Amino acid sequence: MNFEVLKEDARTNARLGRLKTAHGAVDTPVFMDVGTLASVKALEPRDLKETGAQVVLGNTYHLMLRPGAEVIAAAGGLHNFMRWDGPILTDSGGFQVFSLAKMRKITEDGCRFNSHLDGHEFFLGPKESMAMQRVLGSDIAMVFDECLPYPCDRERAEKSVEQTIRWAKRSKDEPHAEGQMVFGIVQGGVYDDLRRHCAEELVKIGFDGYAVGGVSVGEPENFMYQAVDASVPYLPEDRPRYVMGLGVMHQMAECVARGIDMFDCVIPTRIARHGTAITRRGNVAIKAAKWIFDQGPVEEGCDCYCCRNFTRSYVRHLLSCGEILGLRLLTIHNVHALNRFMSEMRSAIADGVFSEWKEQVKKDTVK
Amino acid sequence: MNFEVLKEDARTNARLGRLKTAHGAVDTPVFMDVGTLASVKALEPRDLKETGAQVVLGNTYHLMLRPGAEVIAAAGGLHNFMRWDGPILTDSGGFQVFSLAKMRKITEDGCRFNSHLDGHEFFLGPKESMAMQRVLGSDIAMVFDECLPYPCDRERAEKSVEQTIRWAKRSKDEPHAEGQMVFGIVQGGVYDDLRRHCAEELVKIGFDGYAVGGVSVGEPENFMYQAVDASVPYLPEDRPRYVMGLGVMHQMAECVARGIDMFDCVIPTRIARHGTAITRRGNVAIKAAKWIFDQGPVEEGCDCYCCRNFTRSYVRHLLSCGEILGLRLLTIHNVHALNRFMSEMRSAIADGVFSEWKEQVKKDTVK
Repeated sequence: MNFEVLKEDARTNARLGRLKTAHGAVDTPVFMDVGTLASVKALEPRDLKETGAQVVLGNTYHLMLRPGAEVIAAAGGLHNFMRWDGPILTDSGGFQVFSLAKMRKITEDGCRFNSHLDGHEFFLGPKESMAMQRVLGSDIAMVFDECLPYPCDRERAEKSVEQTIRWAKRSKDEPHAEGQMVFGIVQGGVYDDLRRHCAEELVKIGFDGYAVGGVSVGEPENFMYQAVDASVPYLPEDRPRYVMGLGVMHQMAECVARGIDMFDCVIPTRIARHGTAITRRGNVAIKAAKWIFDQGPVEEGCDCYCCRNFTRSYVRHLLSCGEILGLRLLTIHNVHALNRFMSEMRSAIADGVFSEWKEQVKKDTVK
Repeated sequence: MNFEVLKEDARTNARLGRLKTAHGAVDTPVFMDVGTLASVKALEPRDLKETGAQVVLGNTYHLMLRPGAEVIAAAGGLHNFMRWDGPILTDSGGFQVFSLAKMRKITEDGCRFNSHLDGHEFFLGPKESMAMQRVLGSDIAMVFDECLPYPCDRERAEKSVEQTIRWAKRSKDEPHAEGQMVFGIVQGGVYDDLRRHCAEELVKIGFDGYAVGGVSVGEPENFMYQAVDASVPYLPEDRPRYVMGLGVMHQMAECVARGIDMFDCVIPTRIARHGTAITRRGNVAIKAAKWIFDQGPVEEGCDCYCCRNFTRSYVRHLLSCGEILGLRLLTIHNVHALNRFMSEMRSAIADGVFSEWKEQVKKDTVK
């Protein structure tokens, strides 16, 4: 077994775990940093190590378009291409095909679409996605699925879930890279019975882990938790569970309380580029005029490279001038902040105080 | 004496030296890295140390506009604001006032101008420039001068040189930061007698070092060396000499052969952002399609962080996608390449082979 549950919380479904991969063990619950185009934006591998990053996520769709499979194959895979020697998870490309690309035609084999960059035509289905993820050589590959939008009517959701299940089976049956785990993805929108059905069918196929997909696509927060609650009871206890696309502190805490072990999100790197710092007391707009003379760090008590060395006054100045160093320092801080948050969460579970800690997080961060 | 000449080349005017500053000693000949807005673009202080940078240059004009004197004063000066604990040289702002700003009026006291950013009105003359440089707390301050354009007629050059001399005197007489050296700037355009006159008058005033200004402003290369040749013989042997705005390998070697000790230029950081690598065999366009599959480093034999870890294929991919990491890695390489070049130059002087080395540099880098 690749996944070991080390401790279960007495009052919630939160759990401490360890996931073994071909590139090292991962302590869960874990937040994974998104490296869309073979780079966690503005950071290099040594920064990721320093900020406590455990897993980097690569995007199959983006990497298929740029630089393309041949270039990454020539480097011997994504780890070597980007020189990240820790675990990598790759998504299947399904989400981007349906949200970014111009769709031409969907068949049982997959999707014909035009690149969002230059209109070049591509085809991506379970076969192509798994082949690309095999080239990438990720430690965890995701099945090719259809990510339902919100809202979505019952009829469409039903048809889509069946397609997702058939694609999951085909994804499983394709050849994978050596040591590569494959995770299934539970879809079903806001329909609890569809979520259950999808989960049960995926478990019959059998995967190394299971994601709850179609969450954080614009739905109200309660629907997010409902989707998790409708899926988790039908997933095996001894496999990791992953909510895709989520990176807000109190939402991750709520999902962990419901049995989730893994998350990923572009939030920390994206909002850094817009001048916003993630802190344990909520987000802070560092570009704001109130920080012009401020000699304190971006976050009091933070031990990241940015906070150990620079003032809000300096970082604000750099951001105001559009200096690359400003968004880089803030990216270092934000990635560190979320990784440290997960470490704090793991300690709370280990110490048996997760529920109290979760309430405190909500008080601290939701204004 | 702050400056010590350690060795003079037998066949040229090249010399090895050491310049002592309040923030450490500088080995000359030296290339100084430009940190316009309190950041060497895309790099942090630890990167500068790692690339062998000795001196950071700050721009008085840019820092006066953003973040302004009060903000840097609140941080206790530029060293503390940007957390660079090595030597800093600041220019006077004269060059930018005459080249970037919208000039309103020039008087004996200085220039009234509108900011190139938002039209806000400022006044900068010897008094204001030295006051700002005192706030910045640089180790070396430059006098306020008028940088002549190329071409420039004799009559204008004559008047301007007299103004530059009077402003140099006033700059010298203003109060300076503790331990701050002040350098004069020889102007005079392409007129050898004006260069000599300016140099002689500046030496009468007496400065800690002397720059040759108005070089690398669009003139043919031979005029550049002519300006140096017309100035150096009238400057004291025991003071450092500095050509402003120059950063091309063979041109720096030629100037060192003529007795120059210091250089600065935005070239390494600027061309990195455009995807060009500086190498000991000339510039290389890393974005070029020929590198798509190339598994070699940006420069063979280079020991910078970029070349130790990443391939041309990867750096090219990042640059092609506009990823910040691409220009950052190339900036690290370029800054390292020029600093290493100067180190190689110092070794050539120390070993008594400077002339041969200089010829080889020209063969290697001028296509």
